[in-house]
Amino acid sequence: MRFSLLSPSSSHARAGLLTTPHGQVPTPAFMPVGTQAAVKAVTPEDVRNTGATIVLSNTYHLYLRPGIELIQKFGGLHKFMRWNGPILTDSGGFQVFSLGHMRKLTDEGATFRSHIDGSEHRLTPELAVAYQEALGSDIAMVLDHCPAYGESHEQIAAATERTHRWAERCLNAHTRKDQALFAIVQGGWSAELRRQSAQTLAAMGFPGYAIGGVSVGEPKALAYEAVENAEPHLPKDKPRYLMGVGSPEDLVQCIARGIDMFDCALPTRVARNGSLFTRQGRVSIRNAKYRELDGPFDESCDCYSCGAFSAAYLHHLFKSDEILYHRLGTIHNLRFILRLMEESRTAILAGTFDSFARSFLDGYKSTDEETRIAQKGKWVAAREARGLDA
Amino acid sequence: MRFSLLSPSSSHARAGLLTTPHGQVPTPAFMPVGTQAAVKAVTPEDVRNTGATIVLSNTYHLYLRPGIELIQKFGGLHKFMRWNGPILTDSGGFQVFSLGHMRKLTDEGATFRSHIDGSEHRLTPELAVAYQEALGSDIAMVLDHCPAYGESHEQIAAATERTHRWAERCLNAHTRKDQALFAIVQGGWSAELRRQSAQTLAAMGFPGYAIGGVSVGEPKALAYEAVENAEPHLPKDKPRYLMGVGSPEDLVQCIARGIDMFDCALPTRVARNGSLFTRQGRVSIRNAKYRELDGPFDESCDCYSCGAFSAAYLHHLFKSDEILYHRLGTIHNLRFILRLMEESRTAILAGTFDSFARSFLDGYKSTDEETRIAQKGKWVAAREARGLDA
Repeated sequence: MRFSLLSPSSSHARAGLLTTPHGQVPTPAFMPVGTQAAVKAVTPEDVRNTGATIVLSNTYHLYLRPGIELIQKFGGLHKFMRWNGPILTDSGGFQVFSLGHMRKLTDEGATFRSHIDGSEHRLTPELAVAYQEALGSDIAMVLDHCPAYGESHEQIAAATERTHRWAERCLNAHTRKDQALFAIVQGGWSAELRRQSAQTLAAMGFPGYAIGGVSVGEPKALAYEAVENAEPHLPKDKPRYLMGVGSPEDLVQCIARGIDMFDCALPTRVARNGSLFTRQGRVSIRNAKYRELDGPFDESCDCYSCGAFSAAYLHHLFKSDEILYHRLGTIHNLRFILRLMEESRTAILAGTFDSFARSFLDGYKSTDEETRIAQKGKWVAAREARGLDA
Repeated sequence: MRFSLLSPSSSHARAGLLTTPHGQVPTPAFMPVGTQAAVKAVTPEDVRNTGATIVLSNTYHLYLRPGIELIQKFGGLHKFMRWNGPILTDSGGFQVFSLGHMRKLTDEGATFRSHIDGSEHRLTPELAVAYQEALGSDIAMVLDHCPAYGESHEQIAAATERTHRWAERCLNAHTRKDQALFAIVQGGWSAELRRQSAQTLAAMGFPGYAIGGVSVGEPKALAYEAVENAEPHLPKDKPRYLMGVGSPEDLVQCIARGIDMFDCALPTRVARNGSLFTRQGRVSIRNAKYRELDGPFDESCDCYSCGAFSAAYLHHLFKSDEILYHRLGTIHNLRFILRLMEESRTAILAGTFDSFARSFLDGYKSTDEETRIAQKGKWVAAREARGLDA
């Protein structure tokens, strides 16, 4: 993997180019989430047509179903899911930690029960690396210890130190030269821990760095601070990936703070629930104003769905529980996000990102904090009830 | 609408060409079902790519949601659903009769309650025609009285006579010159009633004739007999459409009995439940043998899904409840059926249909009668519970 920065030094926002064995990724980049080796409701072709160049998949889910061995036998994840572009896999850590009472944790690793059938499994830093090498992703992630929102400073400090020990073990275990292994910075809401974590991991010499431990239910301001606390201590010439972040406003805010890569299930998840992005904010396709709108949902959108169908038709499909809506809504939201990334990149390269970001954020009405946290809570609950599907 | 027969007179099976304001339909033709102005899980483009040239949509559902007026305001159903090929609409009669205790029936028409919100509505022969004229379908159907399976000879006779009176009223009410109105033959399981019904309606001079009242839970043999009892009394030069029939074996059996057009939700419905067609019969994609099959689900299939993905991937998507499976399974089953129609037509034109049909039926293991009727019963129950979705 190679990474080259193209941006003018005048801005904090960066434009770069990541070169992987399966192709190039212009940055800033958004990775659609294909938890179970599929981006929900769309084909690889659909994903490509939204402008995405790299997708994310989840080691935890693939390990349980269809199994790492099966995917390896098929020649790896790219071949199995028929996505021939770059893939980043997470380590499974985040999902295992989300299992709550269903897992036990020691410094050696985690023991957990499958959310599908309750069977017992182990995950260690070495296994996380081995699984991802078998999957053959272009970018693998270290196993980290991601504290839950609300843990004490001591707990966070301990998790952060464990994350560093595990990062080193992952680095030692990693053998695949055609796969890049990214570290994950932890440190919670402490500037000091974030700095220490970034510096400790930077000293180990990873080809890329993620900022983890955000998007766990905290107020947005805390997430931005976590980025600000870690970012200055990461090597300038390596890609920085903010995990689990992906609302339009957060993407712009964090590109402005020097982040190169993002992933998030939010755009596809809210699409399925009827929430579609516009430059003015998220709106519900259920809204009565779309009932008779004989034009595209979003005049300014160049996605397949807005090009091919009227807002009234999308409204009808959603109200009628037609499965087709899921695909069309997903395509719209992904295209919205990917286009936002493309426009951000163009602005960075033109040296106009600050005004682009200001203008975008002025026009975009964010979902208010209270609603956002309530929705996230509902989602986490539903997710737990269903067994962790993103 | 024009219909021309191309088949050699040596066979009972017919090949023809139906010309409508929205394009041509080579017959025998299968019409995918787009109940709510959408073929479930697929786009018009997907439908076209399976080889379909005409789709069916349901007046009853469209009347309730989004409403006939709205579709009319949008310039008709073709524009609303973005399907620019021919469309056949049913009259809403079958759905209203299926409502059971939720409807009252007189010779004037039916009064029924919406399966969505319980609101009360009326349907008469004149309204059924007016609604379909407003939808702008290429082929409209008369309102008929379709008896339930198990009704007495007297009940069936009365329903058949009412069907004839209503057919005449529909014919008188029909004004759109760019829309063909098809009659529907009833008569249940009586050869005499079927003959009478076919002759009575034929005398009225419709541009096309459907055989209704089958596929209501009866043994297959009865449905074939109903076709045999009606068909000889229908005009040779007009298209014959067998309503609600669409399993592979029934299509071949009824093409052999002189039917030109079919519709059925079965191929798309069973696809979503995991049942996929092969030349050997219907099989479940859940089957363990697909878990590790690194080749297409069906080697001989030329559909998008078989071309793009492995059987193991489809198996994985289905087991993992991934929405994408619905689209891929639907595309496969539709393509299977459309290809069967294409091959039947080729065989008819080559004068080899009898041997083609024999060879197909020899190789194709039908779902046994008991399972079939049990499944149909379950489906009807589920459908009633959900409110009639096909």
